[in-house]
Amino acid sequence: MTEPTQKMTWIPEATCGQARAGHLHTRHGVVQTPTFMPVGTVGTVKGMTMDAVRSTGAGIVLGNTYHLMLRPNADRVQKLGGLHKMMDWPGPILTDSGGFQVMSLGALRKLDEDGVTFRSHIDGSKHRLTPESSTDIQYKLDATITMAFDECPALPATPDVLRKSMEMSMRWAARSREAFVARDGYGQFGIVQGGTEKELREASVKALTDIGFEGYAIGGLAVGEGQELMFSTLDFTTPLLPQDKARYLMGVGTPDDLLGAVMRGVDMFDCVMPSRAGRTARAYTERGTINLRNARFAEDTRPITPHDDSPMAGKYTRAYFHHLFRANEILGPMLLTWHNLAYYQRLMRTIRQAIIAGNLTEVAQKLRQDWAQGDWTEDEWPMPQLAL
Amino acid sequence: MTEPTQKMTWIPEATCGQARAGHLHTRHGVVQTPTFMPVGTVGTVKGMTMDAVRSTGAGIVLGNTYHLMLRPNADRVQKLGGLHKMMDWPGPILTDSGGFQVMSLGALRKLDEDGVTFRSHIDGSKHRLTPESSTDIQYKLDATITMAFDECPALPATPDVLRKSMEMSMRWAARSREAFVARDGYGQFGIVQGGTEKELREASVKALTDIGFEGYAIGGLAVGEGQELMFSTLDFTTPLLPQDKARYLMGVGTPDDLLGAVMRGVDMFDCVMPSRAGRTARAYTERGTINLRNARFAEDTRPITPHDDSPMAGKYTRAYFHHLFRANEILGPMLLTWHNLAYYQRLMRTIRQAIIAGNLTEVAQKLRQDWAQGDWTEDEWPMPQLAL
Repeated sequence: MTEPTQKMTWIPEATCGQARAGHLHTRHGVVQTPTFMPVGTVGTVKGMTMDAVRSTGAGIVLGNTYHLMLRPNADRVQKLGGLHKMMDWPGPILTDSGGFQVMSLGALRKLDEDGVTFRSHIDGSKHRLTPESSTDIQYKLDATITMAFDECPALPATPDVLRKSMEMSMRWAARSREAFVARDGYGQFGIVQGGTEKELREASVKALTDIGFEGYAIGGLAVGEGQELMFSTLDFTTPLLPQDKARYLMGVGTPDDLLGAVMRGVDMFDCVMPSRAGRTARAYTERGTINLRNARFAEDTRPITPHDDSPMAGKYTRAYFHHLFRANEILGPMLLTWHNLAYYQRLMRTIRQAIIAGNLTEVAQKLRQDWAQGDWTEDEWPMPQLAL
Repeated sequence: MTEPTQKMTWIPEATCGQARAGHLHTRHGVVQTPTFMPVGTVGTVKGMTMDAVRSTGAGIVLGNTYHLMLRPNADRVQKLGGLHKMMDWPGPILTDSGGFQVMSLGALRKLDEDGVTFRSHIDGSKHRLTPESSTDIQYKLDATITMAFDECPALPATPDVLRKSMEMSMRWAARSREAFVARDGYGQFGIVQGGTEKELREASVKALTDIGFEGYAIGGLAVGEGQELMFSTLDFTTPLLPQDKARYLMGVGTPDDLLGAVMRGVDMFDCVMPSRAGRTARAYTERGTINLRNARFAEDTRPITPHDDSPMAGKYTRAYFHHLFRANEILGPMLLTWHNLAYYQRLMRTIRQAIIAGNLTEVAQKLRQDWAQGDWTEDEWPMPQLAL
């Protein structure tokens, strides 16, 4: 790795307990943290124009190396000027390393010390990922943030399995760092592994900080261990991480997961939940989730939430969403993905403002109370009478 | 029918040969004619937000009575404040009468003098449409322009079949007019039938103008007769129509169909072609159509056309469209429908400006030459070299 003249830096702005507000300075713009990154799997946030993504306040999006290396493939993305130009997103992009998604292929992949061989879920063709090739692919994709290539074992796993896997991931992290081409304002994050074992997480953090990255991700969580175990793992992991670098909890989560993780010192998140839910009629609101296919919304003249400050706010009734999903119209997933991503961004802004105001504990309590309360009743929030 | 204080009016602005430019003044805004109406079948232009539809310059959209009466149903649309409020389109909306679409059900429908009984294509449930109920449904949908309920026989048909059908349509037109609730700036169009028979078209126009409508549609074309027969039918039909009322050719057509029909005195069009093509990777350009799934576009760094003046112009390469369609991403149909509708609106603006400038013949010749020439070669229009 060569040294760039301008490094990617994370600048703290305020703390509240373990929670941190800050700014991540990158080649492609400044990201306010804590931040939620919408998932743009294959060069598109499903069902969204990037103008719509921008309108929600998103500051950084994620791309998936595994999907992009298969289709359209890394060389082609490079010929198209990289992901930013290809998908109309000049802002920062983080790409995962492909490691996690290749592991999910199960029987279709074969692991060795050097890397992973696997078959494409699209056409069965054979491919290989190593720390070097994953890093090279992310270079060709023009990722603002490159992730180190790692192995992520499913939980529960024995301590011995977890240790061996973590140790290999650390060797892979060193090789990933070696392969990384440093450029002004670009960065690479190492990924802490070690499951729910404190000792392994400590060893993993030590290995990664010895190498030195622009940021640190916490991997190996949100893989079936449950929120309690995830939080207790964060409780002993985040304090081990450098104070002056961004921290990214991969693949998390529900609004309540995000809140709890921010309160444990995490700055960055990604998750398919809000976009996937948007395609299946499930809407996130300040009062929990509702399923708009439900018959009770057929003539509900209220918008999904009274609190939406996104550009699409106030334009559509719940009844219209209900109709679109019942009629299998593309516009349903389009609008509801937009709504859900806008809700996630609004939530992150609320949390960020509370960190800066120093009242995150009170705000968190109120957020949780509201989620638990469930959808607004008609007494609380009457339906507008619409006339021709 | 009661008389409104402010009628829907069509004001001529310029003519060029038979072609007319004008303004249709309605309760929901002024529409520049000639105009193309995007089809919003079931309360949504498939794959488009109405902001995107607006951005193309569309001035009026179409809704389908048959689809809307089944789902979400007319009473529900009325409770939601009508189609305008439901779908975020405060501008003018024309609804068809359901007649044409019910005819397309074939064996699922049964015709009598009073109306049509049919079974829903969704759940097989039994429904009935008459001139009175169709008009009432369109009232509940809050259609700016209501269409008279008619029967549209498939072509070819014998003169006797065409006459009987036309005569019933004219009796239905009188009943539709009787049922129409006149309101300021709202209007109702009668539909000229009679197939390709001049004498029948004359009789139909006489019957409709005796009743008196705010506009006149030409029905019974674009049902398999071919462009030549369609144009020759227009040649003797449009001169029969009142000079001071808008003329609407239903369900037409290709860019070349629109051009030829405008030159024969038609002002309004609707067709699913540009939106349907957008969902199947077919792009309309000044140089004809191209299919973006084709392998030759995989690394084509040019936009679809150099002439796009829509808000999405210049954002995406042909290669990106190719990728989106190959990966079955929703964004492909979303963006290409947008592109195609923008092309259709741009074409109508070009034609309209030529009518006003008095050089439509020359402009038409140039348009047809370009369509015939086929896609731009790389010599004519080199591919930009994109770099990281």
